[in-house]
Amino acid sequence: MVIATGVAARLPNVAGQDLEGVFCLRDLSDAVAIKRFIQEGRVKRASIIGAGFIALEMCEAFKSVGLETKIIHRGELPMQNLGEDFGRKILTVIKDNGVEFLPDRKIEAFEGGRENGLLIHTNEERLDTDLILIGIGVLPQVTLASEAGVSMGPTGAIAVNDHMQTNFPFVYSAGDCCETYHRISRKPVHVPLGDVANKQGYVAGANIGGQDLSFPGVLGSFCCKIFDWELAATGLGESVARELGLDVHSVTIEAGNKPEGFSGAHPLWLRLVADKRAGRLIGAQAIGGEGAVSRVNLLAAALTGGLTLGEIANLDLAYAPPFSSARDPVHIAAQQLLK
Amino acid sequence: MVIATGVAARLPNVAGQDLEGVFCLRDLSDAVAIKRFIQEGRVKRASIIGAGFIALEMCEAFKSVGLETKIIHRGELPMQNLGEDFGRKILTVIKDNGVEFLPDRKIEAFEGGRENGLLIHTNEERLDTDLILIGIGVLPQVTLASEAGVSMGPTGAIAVNDHMQTNFPFVYSAGDCCETYHRISRKPVHVPLGDVANKQGYVAGANIGGQDLSFPGVLGSFCCKIFDWELAATGLGESVARELGLDVHSVTIEAGNKPEGFSGAHPLWLRLVADKRAGRLIGAQAIGGEGAVSRVNLLAAALTGGLTLGEIANLDLAYAPPFSSARDPVHIAAQQLLK
Repeated sequence: MVIATGVAARLPNVAGQDLEGVFCLRDLSDAVAIKRFIQEGRVKRASIIGAGFIALEMCEAFKSVGLETKIIHRGELPMQNLGEDFGRKILTVIKDNGVEFLPDRKIEAFEGGRENGLLIHTNEERLDTDLILIGIGVLPQVTLASEAGVSMGPTGAIAVNDHMQTNFPFVYSAGDCCETYHRISRKPVHVPLGDVANKQGYVAGANIGGQDLSFPGVLGSFCCKIFDWELAATGLGESVARELGLDVHSVTIEAGNKPEGFSGAHPLWLRLVADKRAGRLIGAQAIGGEGAVSRVNLLAAALTGGLTLGEIANLDLAYAPPFSSARDPVHIAAQQLLK
Repeated sequence: MVIATGVAARLPNVAGQDLEGVFCLRDLSDAVAIKRFIQEGRVKRASIIGAGFIALEMCEAFKSVGLETKIIHRGELPMQNLGEDFGRKILTVIKDNGVEFLPDRKIEAFEGGRENGLLIHTNEERLDTDLILIGIGVLPQVTLASEAGVSMGPTGAIAVNDHMQTNFPFVYSAGDCCETYHRISRKPVHVPLGDVANKQGYVAGANIGGQDLSFPGVLGSFCCKIFDWELAATGLGESVARELGLDVHSVTIEAGNKPEGFSGAHPLWLRLVADKRAGRLIGAQAIGGEGAVSRVNLLAAALTGGLTLGEIANLDLAYAPPFSSARDPVHIAAQQLLK
């Protein structure tokens, strides 16, 4: 048996969250419903609760169909787990694209408003809107598994071994409903992302079919596109690493994604986090133009191989001016952190 | 002392190679001279001798200023070291962009033609043209070093150790004039590329300044842009690996660089070459739309880390639909080669 029950959208647990016009974005049917609701023509204003990557991707989607769009967030900055500096850059990007950002807000209730509109009650104000999108995360759907006696891990998702087996060896689990292993922190984590689910499903299926495959775990890699910017991260952020008791240092550099004058040239900010004693990379985050994601992906491969900063400073990357400078931002950052 | 005498363009050693209108492209002054010669207005037809990456980049440059452009090559296909299949794709790209390709030609002489034009004599025909660009490779400039008693390596370039020292410990060498070490073939190679020169110079300078840095060598990574296509390679190609006596196998897949419908979606062909017994990657080549270079770069990091195909099939890359599919071409190729 394979348990692949996925996740459900987390809800703020306030009055009015079932009103017409209040959506979450969990699967294709949600997307279709949102699109249809907008096409009915009464929607001029969209309000997004949350400031993670679903919120950021959706504010671009709402702006692209001409909606007046705001993000309402309990914290001070979007994507704050990437650090205050990167959070401020993201804030600038969304503001420059005409999205309003309301920080430090607590949602108290949703209410039907005038002329088929909606009202959002926060700790600060009442906001008129036509559509509410809740994007505050997801929760593993584990009621069935739990009632059947399947063990949960510390994250609240289904515990599995590297063969994707639960505590019952003939009951497998894969995808967003189960935990995985973080290769750098060496702890169980819940990373409900499609690419991870895909690999877990492959490993579970191969093992059920008689092969002997292991899923080695994740680095917590993710990325998202925010208007014409790219944002990506892999491994551990500096503050998470410190919370885990690791002795780390980091460097953040600004560099061009390619030489000035080439099509798509745009600044890029890259942060490397390394273990101080071993000099080994433990995480990287990037934000900027085209190529932020590709730098993080090559650093994800470097992380998997346990490369030191010295090895990263000398990585033999394919170089030509339309793609990069002779010293890539990755080289520059590693050299700076080595100093 | 540091010997950094670089390379000179290789010439075909035929009559007329010093005629006005015959160029090579070694440094900025060559580029300025070519541009000026074209701007004088008599140039309508450009002929490129060679079909490596300088030739491919320059045919795009010539087409972009409206010149009738042909490539004259001694071999059958451009970039033939990447395999016949990739060579055929490159040929299609340049032909689709209006570049004529004349294969299997031996250059016999250049001659001044009518109305300030030029004539190229090949083993097959006489060709009228206005500008000739020779792009058949480079030779290390080592006369000075050689006469001073500095040792050359088997490639004909200056032999250096990992600290960039020649046979005289206080004489360093860096850049295109010296050899380097290929991390996969474990042999000396001559790789006259700007990014390698840059890293070698850094290591030489640091050691001269009292540090103790090693240059770990190269993977032979390179890339180039051909019109709107990308081409990249790292590590060993299959035939080179076989010539070195390695027991290798390979897979070539066609996959989308990103999901259909996203801006920039384009097919991409990726070849992985692996050691059969150890299951370890030893090389990768890619050609296609946006993202061919970035896949090769993450595989360059994987090569540096000695990753196995199993590790590559499960690499935790940052995934979002504007950038890739949940199963990236890299995962698909590694999984296929594992079967």
